[in-house]
Amino acid sequence: MKKDEKNEVVELEQGGGGQKSAELIGAIRGIISDKGKWKNQMDDGATLKVGNQHLVFTTDAYIVDPLFFPGGDIGKIAVCGTINDLAMMGAVPQGLSLSMVIEEGFPKKDLLQISSSIQKMSHEAGVPIVTGDTKVMPKGKIDKIEITTAGVGLAKKIISNGGIKIGDVIISSGDLGEHTVALLSSRFNYKTNLKSDSKTLHREIKEVGNFLHSAKDPTRGGLSANLIEMAEKSKVKIVLEEELLPYKKETFALANLLGLDVFSFASEGRFVGAVAEKDAQKVLKILKKFNKEAKIIGWAERGSGLHLKTELGSLRRIEMPRGKLVPRIC
Amino acid sequence: MKKDEKNEVVELEQGGGGQKSAELIGAIRGIISDKGKWKNQMDDGATLKVGNQHLVFTTDAYIVDPLFFPGGDIGKIAVCGTINDLAMMGAVPQGLSLSMVIEEGFPKKDLLQISSSIQKMSHEAGVPIVTGDTKVMPKGKIDKIEITTAGVGLAKKIISNGGIKIGDVIISSGDLGEHTVALLSSRFNYKTNLKSDSKTLHREIKEVGNFLHSAKDPTRGGLSANLIEMAEKSKVKIVLEEELLPYKKETFALANLLGLDVFSFASEGRFVGAVAEKDAQKVLKILKKFNKEAKIIGWAERGSGLHLKTELGSLRRIEMPRGKLVPRIC
Repeated sequence: MKKDEKNEVVELEQGGGGQKSAELIGAIRGIISDKGKWKNQMDDGATLKVGNQHLVFTTDAYIVDPLFFPGGDIGKIAVCGTINDLAMMGAVPQGLSLSMVIEEGFPKKDLLQISSSIQKMSHEAGVPIVTGDTKVMPKGKIDKIEITTAGVGLAKKIISNGGIKIGDVIISSGDLGEHTVALLSSRFNYKTNLKSDSKTLHREIKEVGNFLHSAKDPTRGGLSANLIEMAEKSKVKIVLEEELLPYKKETFALANLLGLDVFSFASEGRFVGAVAEKDAQKVLKILKKFNKEAKIIGWAERGSGLHLKTELGSLRRIEMPRGKLVPRIC
Repeated sequence: MKKDEKNEVVELEQGGGGQKSAELIGAIRGIISDKGKWKNQMDDGATLKVGNQHLVFTTDAYIVDPLFFPGGDIGKIAVCGTINDLAMMGAVPQGLSLSMVIEEGFPKKDLLQISSSIQKMSHEAGVPIVTGDTKVMPKGKIDKIEITTAGVGLAKKIISNGGIKIGDVIISSGDLGEHTVALLSSRFNYKTNLKSDSKTLHREIKEVGNFLHSAKDPTRGGLSANLIEMAEKSKVKIVLEEELLPYKKETFALANLLGLDVFSFASEGRFVGAVAEKDAQKVLKILKKFNKEAKIIGWAERGSGLHLKTELGSLRRIEMPRGKLVPRIC
């Protein structure tokens, strides 16, 4: 730490998944740098060879506000998020851990509702909750409840988020950002028919995984943070077509209304992937069985960064989300 | 939930590791009951057969107050605690995940000090931090920082906490409860030379694991919660000798002063184990290389529950810690 950073504090924006998050995480990562036999630690999870398989290990903390929102609750996204991180690496999720930190005075009926939601999601996904911890904080020391899940999966072949090849087509598994829309609509009592897009993705990935050169789910930080990271790691330039952007009109409208960057809007049940052009239609056909909104949104070429080809034909660079990000979306 | 429980809330005591914790965890466990191919979920971790080994998976949340205390800090115990849970199952710890939920405005120098402590402990233990997550809560929505670690280990043979056999000798790897003493002394500005006993146990377990019928580390809930659970699962009665109780005079004195149950005092670097009487001296000799306080504290016989044989020769039943437990010790 530099001398003039002595009185620095953690800022709320450093939790938003954009440029400032990267700085905070970078500072911590700089200190915790032992690797051992593990690989892919900069991906959605870390991997370890066990016998002839790869063990994949990942974790996520959930501080979502409100706890219950259209299309889900904190329990549902805590299960989906960790299953999806495993799936993005090409792993078959085997089991999850569940740690809950609960505020003294939290209504038991809400706790049981969240637990039921966890059970329902875990059961539907076929991925059991196998170990856990429960702590209670004195009243006022935590806002209601925080959940951390970790997950282990097994993969024959790892899908890296740095595997995009020049000439690849970029696919989105559905329209994006609706998780953020659902949370904002709950917070501001804004009327919308959109619901959180939270769901598990491991079954989709199981069917198309062999074709994917790279995959990542645009949660916190949204599409731009995702694709900028993937472009950087893959050493390619990604170009999105403005007329193919995977957002609904209502999503654009809400972003404009609140002066927010739509590219930073989070999904909790979507992924973007890169496939060879020759496989694109085959992959799309499969993905459409799960979500008819699945579509091609761009391509990879020689160069760097994430760019938007506007409807007028000009090219504009898309930057990492900065500044005003919606806090506590996951 | 019964009708009259509709307005029930989570109580602080339900986080203390005693009888009331068991009730809360039981309510959640009742809902989340899918098991899949996993075993030992009621133990310190869950296990899954992978090839010819057992994958062991565990998690713990840390809400300790204060963050820095004599002998350690929240980062150190977050690493030790999860490594120890893996070790208690007979696993060689392979890697940890680290999730931090940080309050907006938290000093970066404290965050870096905690991160350094995590790195130091992880490095000394030879167990890397391989994946993680960082979230930021708005000011006032969480008290400073909460850390959740999860861990994966690999074991050839699982040590269960329900494996005690009649005739076994109960061993403590050192004097107990000094983690709670260190925290209380920080909180109340009480002078003591005792420090938190936090340390990793995987090297001790590696050397004596083959002799252990059962092992558990007396963290939250202390010795009584530990041994009552082990006795119940093993279907034996455990008798402790009052004159052999593994507590220092200062520990007893502080418990008496504050009217607390010394048997509920936590350690973060000790374990109690059961071994055949014929192996006891061999095991003790090895454990004394790590901590000269290691000693026999009792035995297992036909019957049930945890009992104390007083110096006068009478037998008194020890109950699960209830009511006034020290909050936020881990």
